[in-house]
Amino acid sequence: MDASFSNKKKILNDPVYGFISFPSEIFFDLVEHRYFQRLRRIKQLGLTHLVYPGALHTRFHHALGCLHLMQLAMSVLRSKGHDITAEEEEGVCLAILLHDIGHGPFSHALESSIVSGTSHEALSDLFIDRLNGYCGGRLELAREIFRDRYPKRFLHKMVAGQLDMDRLDYLKRDSFYTGVSEGVISADRIIQMLNIAEDELVVDAKGIYSIEKFIVARRLMYWQVYLHKTVLGAEQLLIRILLRARELTSGGAELFSTPALAFFLRHRAQKVDFHEQAGWLDTFAALDDFDVLTSIKVWEDHKDPILSGLSQRLIGRRLLRTLILDEAPAAEQIERLRQHWARRTGTALAEAHWFVFGGKISNKAYDDSLEPILILYRDGRLIPLTEASEHINLGQISKPLTKYYLCYPKELD
Amino acid sequence: MDASFSNKKKILNDPVYGFISFPSEIFFDLVEHRYFQRLRRIKQLGLTHLVYPGALHTRFHHALGCLHLMQLAMSVLRSKGHDITAEEEEGVCLAILLHDIGHGPFSHALESSIVSGTSHEALSDLFIDRLNGYCGGRLELAREIFRDRYPKRFLHKMVAGQLDMDRLDYLKRDSFYTGVSEGVISADRIIQMLNIAEDELVVDAKGIYSIEKFIVARRLMYWQVYLHKTVLGAEQLLIRILLRARELTSGGAELFSTPALAFFLRHRAQKVDFHEQAGWLDTFAALDDFDVLTSIKVWEDHKDPILSGLSQRLIGRRLLRTLILDEAPAAEQIERLRQHWARRTGTALAEAHWFVFGGKISNKAYDDSLEPILILYRDGRLIPLTEASEHINLGQISKPLTKYYLCYPKELD
Amino acid sequence: MDASFSNKKKILNDPVYGFISFPSEIFFDLVEHRYFQRLRRIKQLGLTHLVYPGALHTRFHHALGCLHLMQLAMSVLRSKGHDITAEEEEGVCLAILLHDIGHGPFSHALESSIVSGTSHEALSDLFIDRLNGYCGGRLELAREIFRDRYPKRFLHKMVAGQLDMDRLDYLKRDSFYTGVSEGVISADRIIQMLNIAEDELVVDAKGIYSIEKFIVARRLMYWQVYLHKTVLGAEQLLIRILLRARELTSGGAELFSTPALAFFLRHRAQKVDFHEQAGWLDTFAALDDFDVLTSIKVWEDHKDPILSGLSQRLIGRRLLRTLILDEAPAAEQIERLRQHWARRTGTALAEAHWFVFGGKISNKAYDDSLEPILILYRDGRLIPLTEASEHINLGQISKPLTKYYLCYPKELD
Amino acid sequence: MDASFSNKKKILNDPVYGFISFPSEIFFDLVEHRYFQRLRRIKQLGLTHLVYPGALHTRFHHALGCLHLMQLAMSVLRSKGHDITAEEEEGVCLAILLHDIGHGPFSHALESSIVSGTSHEALSDLFIDRLNGYCGGRLELAREIFRDRYPKRFLHKMVAGQLDMDRLDYLKRDSFYTGVSEGVISADRIIQMLNIAEDELVVDAKGIYSIEKFIVARRLMYWQVYLHKTVLGAEQLLIRILLRARELTSGGAELFSTPALAFFLRHRAQKVDFHEQAGWLDTFAALDDFDVLTSIKVWEDHKDPILSGLSQRLIGRRLLRTLILDEAPAAEQIERLRQHWARRTGTALAEAHWFVFGGKISNKAYDDSLEPILILYRDGRLIPLTEASEHINLGQISKPLTKYYLCYPKELD
Repeated sequence: MDASFSNKKKILNDPVYGFISFPSEIFFDLVEHRYFQRLRRIKQLGLTHLVYPGALHTRFHHALGCLHLMQLAMSVLRSKGHDITAEEEEGVCLAILLHDIGHGPFSHALESSIVSGTSHEALSDLFIDRLNGYCGGRLELAREIFRDRYPKRFLHKMVAGQLDMDRLDYLKRDSFYTGVSEGVISADRIIQMLNIAEDELVVDAKGIYSIEKFIVARRLMYWQVYLHKTVLGAEQLLIRILLRARELTSGGAELFSTPALAFFLRHRAQKVDFHEQAGWLDTFAALDDFDVLTSIKVWEDHKDPILSGLSQRLIGRRLLRTLILDEAPAAEQIERLRQHWARRTGTALAEAHWFVFGGKISNKAYDDSLEPILILYRDGRLIPLTEASEHINLGQISKPLTKYYLCYPKELD
Repeated sequence: MDASFSNKKKILNDPVYGFISFPSEIFFDLVEHRYFQRLRRIKQLGLTHLVYPGALHTRFHHALGCLHLMQLAMSVLRSKGHDITAEEEEGVCLAILLHDIGHGPFSHALESSIVSGTSHEALSDLFIDRLNGYCGGRLELAREIFRDRYPKRFLHKMVAGQLDMDRLDYLKRDSFYTGVSEGVISADRIIQMLNIAEDELVVDAKGIYSIEKFIVARRLMYWQVYLHKTVLGAEQLLIRILLRARELTSGGAELFSTPALAFFLRHRAQKVDFHEQAGWLDTFAALDDFDVLTSIKVWEDHKDPILSGLSQRLIGRRLLRTLILDEAPAAEQIERLRQHWARRTGTALAEAHWFVFGGKISNKAYDDSLEPILILYRDGRLIPLTEASEHINLGQISKPLTKYYLCYPKELD
Repeated sequence: MDASFSNKKKILNDPVYGFISFPSEIFFDLVEHRYFQRLRRIKQLGLTHLVYPGALHTRFHHALGCLHLMQLAMSVLRSKGHDITAEEEEGVCLAILLHDIGHGPFSHALESSIVSGTSHEALSDLFIDRLNGYCGGRLELAREIFRDRYPKRFLHKMVAGQLDMDRLDYLKRDSFYTGVSEGVISADRIIQMLNIAEDELVVDAKGIYSIEKFIVARRLMYWQVYLHKTVLGAEQLLIRILLRARELTSGGAELFSTPALAFFLRHRAQKVDFHEQAGWLDTFAALDDFDVLTSIKVWEDHKDPILSGLSQRLIGRRLLRTLILDEAPAAEQIERLRQHWARRTGTALAEAHWFVFGGKISNKAYDDSLEPILILYRDGRLIPLTEASEHINLGQISKPLTKYYLCYPKELD
Repeated sequence: MDASFSNKKKILNDPVYGFISFPSEIFFDLVEHRYFQRLRRIKQLGLTHLVYPGALHTRFHHALGCLHLMQLAMSVLRSKGHDITAEEEEGVCLAILLHDIGHGPFSHALESSIVSGTSHEALSDLFIDRLNGYCGGRLELAREIFRDRYPKRFLHKMVAGQLDMDRLDYLKRDSFYTGVSEGVISADRIIQMLNIAEDELVVDAKGIYSIEKFIVARRLMYWQVYLHKTVLGAEQLLIRILLRARELTSGGAELFSTPALAFFLRHRAQKVDFHEQAGWLDTFAALDDFDVLTSIKVWEDHKDPILSGLSQRLIGRRLLRTLILDEAPAAEQIERLRQHWARRTGTALAEAHWFVFGGKISNKAYDDSLEPILILYRDGRLIPLTEASEHINLGQISKPLTKYYLCYPKELD
């Protein structure tokens, strides 16, 4: 081990796991790359901190947490006698480290507004390609695993499946930082129970309780955190701010903006653009939470009353009233609220939709229709989770739960 | 505040909550009483530590934990504007402190063997009476609440209900000490959500997630800890050891034993005895884990091969193989194992039932047929939990789950 | 309690303490004010997250944590029989809530560069005045306590003293989020030991261990976190970036910048300005981490090689090599490194000081010369901490420890 | 890996570390041995639970915790490039697992009363010999390491040194179970900082903070837990109970007792006895907390007023007043208290020493005179801890602190 390598073999502090260490030099080099460093400036949970003030953790820390869990999982699978080569271990660890590298700031909001032509998965793929070039092709195997083209498919499942290291880390990390202890899962314990049978990632039968708890925790985290009505309202506000900013930009208005944000306000990016235009991916890589929030802060004083009105609400945390409903709000109810708002503020009814609107959300904690989680019994049988579970009705829990929302200014109450 | 009072107003360290404090002098006096101090020598989870070595916590610590939670609950309910008098607060705190004082060592095993004529609830009642005398009648109100004779029935519900401080503390404490993090609940958060409506203890609607998690955790703890097959097998062993010891005693055999244990081996205690015979309760109060385990340790060398054989298995942790089955084991299967055992050990077939036997267990995490947990909505509606819950099928979870077991020496495998 | 009040009586999740609740409506109103909301966008530990990636917590969360501890402390002092009026409790809670409201982004760096004419303490005072107006004078008592003009001086000590709620929260919170468990203190336990004697805030003798641990933890946190060499190097980089930006601005260069940051780059703010010019405080209130970081991100591409060079280093985390030394680095050593740098990069030697420089740091964990922490013995004696402590040499620990640093680009190694 | 092995490769739950796993079959076999299982019935902290009710953890759990830390340490040292053979790893892990196997119940009290002729270290050595026979000589290397006869001396240092896995586990475990968070150390972090240089176990320089914290924590735990005055008083009571019981036994009195305890009350065991008499070690192995406590419970009713009086105090927790003093209590003060007690109770003055007595305690957190903890700097220098530390005066802390105590019945106050 030469000095520079030893120097790079860093250990990082993590409030969640204590320590995270890099398996080898290439991990350190990738983490130092500016494509990865940018994740330091992208919060994992977007605007959730407006409700849970501790939720400021970043995609950077989450990616490292996934790497930590993957190392643990590899060591568990090996101790159970499974043959995993050093190359495969490096590959799957690199794949999980980079699996979310394509995320931009406030992913959902941006994909619903100014970067709607592509997806973070497609961008992760592109970033991995670029980094593979940077690493002299050392990411080949990681890329195969990421794309599910590697024969040992259980490796891909650990990166992207219903029981992957991504979910294990984010549930644990998100519940830790929000302080919502309902979501706490035993990632360690679940990983201790992982196994491989018939080339599938499976769970030893005695781990079934932990898996059930994991599914329940995931569902509850959806409703208590990920789809929290106030967070949802804030995110909808953000989408509308960006859409309005783009509309104004198209109309030729002057708008304070960072260069990277300005670019995406002006261009309607399509997936193909990122592939064909050399600079697009780098411009995307320059975009983070800071560009978006800083611009909105300045827009609080913009002369367009819609842009400034929406921006003031977000920055000053005077969020919209958000109702979660079992059925879609009636068109007349929305119309009535819009009229009310137009009258009250003296604006055109045609613009009221910026402040009064509805929509639909839906969630599945566990998707029966996807490749199921398999439980391995002592006698070698493999049983899908929903059949194996006696304690909670997972058939029930795996049905999607759909809800509707209605947002409007609290002044209309 | 006089000096002696201030002296008694102790704070105790608790690994679970940090600190537990006594609200006033009478609590300190009761805790110092030998009826309460004996709980220091009675483990909350009996033989569970044979599987989860950390599970050594006592009924003493649990009772104090309940007291801590009750104080917190009282402060939450008051902060929501409910009128609770100082006397009522003292009463309900005393009631929860003493609610389990009637437990003997290895309660379930003793109630299934040598102290089968009464129940720990009846004995708690008797102890509370005695202590009431000792306190000059200051426990009157606590007794009314304990017996559910006090008009404000929500106070009783906090002592003994489907969401009482007893359950909140034991789930949290048991999962803490066993290290089974699946059972961890947010007692704090649940208590923050408690409320009173129509004189009932209810849960604010936004606490429904925590309640669901609580029910799921309770069910999982049952199967992973309370009814763990190895623990169950050990407990059955203990029952048989005590039954055999009584049989030998009745037959006139010499048996090492502590005075208190000797008494209960000789007498078949009925409920009425504890009421009518002055000394019985005190003899019971002298009995704890130490009497039972110490005697069994000595019985390892007793000349009766059944008593010594069973005792050696328990002390040396050479426990019986315990199978958990969906259906009752067939009589022929049991018979076959007994014959096998008799042949192998050269003992009479008629005695094989001491080592080979079966039975039934069953559990409900939440009992729909009892007074339900009520959810309070913002508009004032009260909805029973099973109707209110959307995320997990509580109708399903509240059905009892019945299983069967079969125990036999591992040598027969 | 009217409906709107009950509505405002929110509970917030906190990963550190579980829950934080507002004592009354006025707290909620102040927290909602944009002067307070801005603290959501100011990290407590500035650039520390570059070393400890979890350290993203904000001054907003810290202020709420202090409020939580103050409520606990009030309840402990009252339980010990001390008379504290409801007004005093509200006052001291408001004072601690607002004690740090004058902090800008990256306080130390800004006070060492573009906002050097005033201090965050002076600005806190101004903000409290403004908010007092906004609250119709309800902050009078809080202001008296904050300024140490209230007769019961122990109240001020709890806001700003050697054992105040500020220190208790920040040590606990910073160690929690950095993951540096050496700094973990038992804030709960320390608060349980607080008392009042001779109108002084004192510590019960049996709490002396906790206090010693607190002092040791504080000192270690200084060297392991607050003055970590890499953090220190990053902060020095930030100072130089801002100084260079101001220099360029003064010279008439075009510089991307948010309006608030532009203002402070153009004006050399003096304390008096904030008092006399109505808009200055509001402009300061508009400045947060986002203005600073976003501008530096854009400056990565500025044509001035010094500004862009320094900015690229900070954003890309290619930080300076920082050595911590027992003695000041020799002038010749610095000169040599500067020549080396000038030669290597082909820039003027006169500009090398932007990249190669030294300085001094120093720290005291406990300051003997200030009003000491007093220990209260059972017999009523009050002994200063340094005399009372037997276990660690606090005389030693309270001596300031001075160190020097030297920063230069790693390429020069 | 054959089926039976895989069956034995158990994972145990541990509230402190989450999971503890056995490296191989031999560990499982040793843990199942009755010499090891007896540790389940021996509390790590004896009577400490009378003050800290959570402190019920056993030597069994501690030994497993040490094994866990040793495995972690081996993996850290290997990752730093040090060559440790599989045999050496097994040897040092077995040595730490068994290092405390010679402990009897209430070690200090028994070594000060009825088993005073030997030490737990000598008994551990004997048990290891016996187990080595049982394992067919597989413990040879472990024994060499345990006795410090193995050339790579750093292995012994990890079993018994100033920074061994024993201390790391017990500090962490004891502070966890007592709830005294002052003692919490980062065992993980310390282990990450371990290294080997010049065949010595050393600490990387950047770990110095953790080591300082460890020393401070150790010292504070001594005074707050291990030498807590009430615990000390209870232990002295236990010593006197056992001494009195032996005196009565020698005098021919009848005394309830378990067979194992009766043996040690009758015989004055010398070290040589355990070596030469085959059965002595097995009788010792039969002795645990249950024998001692159960007998004392029965002695509460013994007709000797001294034995019953002392026993009632211990069981009923009516402990002696214990004063900790800077100087030895004056002989006259003790005499006066004894006279007072004799008068008050009507007993002979010559017997008053059973209830009124004094003594000396002393403690060193870190012993400079032993082989010091060495700090390894980047440039290869090795500096002893006391010289390297700047933050706390370890010269001071490593001086022994001596105190005196005086115990007497509270009735004499």
